This record gives sequence, structure tokens and C-alpha cells, in this order.
Amino acid sequence: MAIQLHQTQRLDQAFAALADPTRRAILSRLAVGEATVTELMAPFALTQPTISKHLKVLEDAGFIERGRDAQRRPRRLVAPALHDVSDWLEPFRRQWEARLNNLDHHVTNLNKEGD
Amino acid sequence: MAIQLHQTQRLDQAFAALADPTRRAILSRLAVGEATVTELMAPFALTQPTISKHLKVLEDAGFIERGRDAQRRPRRLVAPALHDVSDWLEPFRRQWEARLNNLDHHVTNLNKEGD
Repeated sequence: MAIQLHQTQRLDQAFAALADPTRRAILSRLAVGEATVTELMAPFALTQPTISKHLKVLEDAGFIERGRDAQRRPRRLVAPALHDVSDWLEPFRRQWEARLNNLDHHVTNLNKEGD
Repeated sequence: MAIQLHQTQRLDQAFAALADPTRRAILSRLAVGEATVTELMAPFALTQPTISKHLKVLEDAGFIERGRDAQRRPRRLVAPALHDVSDWLEPFRRQWEARLNNLDHHVTNLNKEGD
């Protein structure tokens, strides 16, 4: 029960963190490779306090962490956190694909009947 | 550009709607089949105004719609909206799987060396 509650709060935090275009763009950038705060500032035309705030939200959600280089303090992606979010969506994705397959099957049958 | 902005706002709204455990539970319930507001109230032990507020958020995010029965006004899932969210996560999921495969490959090689 405690684990389930923890997981629920983690998902709340994860989805809330993803509900912002800058934070999603930062994650997409970090998917290519780690980057320092300075490196992240340029493409997003954001001030350091703003980007730091976004990075804190992503860090708290477990999406990113600080790399090993103590001088540069690069941020990098923690893949498993996004995997949890993806896992939650999996049954919906499967249902949607099953529906598309049924539709496809239906159209094929209609075409056969038309022959 | 207008389409891109629209899509960005849709994703913001979609992720924000998913950042709540009751709303995620409502979506999971509706994945099984359509349900009226009364039917949704019972399992969640929520008042009608509270559940209506959650349903409005899910409707605005494009996740649910009202069914054809004008009397019962059942709510039902709109699958494509969740598919958009799943699509956004797809590159991260693929990267994560590639990493797991690499790890698997690495472990297999280590085992071979150990033979």
C-alpha cells in the first residue's frame, strides 16, 4: 500500500513535470546527451534562474540527474522515470492499436465484399 | 507553426490532466467501457461537483467525450488523445530499450568471457 501510494505520487509529479513545453524540450535535448546549465540556456533563450527552476522540477520528478563532472555539473537523463510514465500509458496504447487493427480488418472485409 | 503551437498546448493540457490520481483512475475505468457520472461517483467516493470538475478537465484535454445516449449522458474514452501523449514518449522508450539491450548484450559477452 505504501509502495502504491509512493508510485501514485511519483506519477503525479512525473505528469505535472511533463505539462510544460520548455521542460519537454529540455528532456528531448538531454536525450541526445548530457548538457550543462549554460549549454541548456542558449537554445531556450531563458535566464539562469528560470532554467534552474525547470531543472529542479525535472530533478524532483526523477527525470534528470547531475553527471559525474563536479566542475561542469552537467545534467543527464534518467531513462527509467520516463519508462514508468510510458508503462502507465501502455494499456491505452494497446487498446488503441487493437481498435485500429479491427478497423483495418473491417475495411479489408468491405473491400472483399465489393469484389 | 500554428499547428505546432496548437499541438504544444494540447500536450501541456494532456499531461496536466494526467497529473492527478483520480483522473487517471477515471480513464482506466472508462477504458473498460463507457460510464455515467453516477456510475463513476461510487467507486471513487467523490461528490458530483468534484467528479464533474475532473470530467471537465479530461473533456477539455480531449481524453473523453459524451456518448450517444442523451438521457444517461455516459462518458467514454477518446483513444487518439492518449495516443498523442504516448507518441511523445516513444523516442525515450526506444532509447531506454536500446540501453537495456546493450546491457543485455554486455552481460552475455561477460558470461562468454567467463566460460
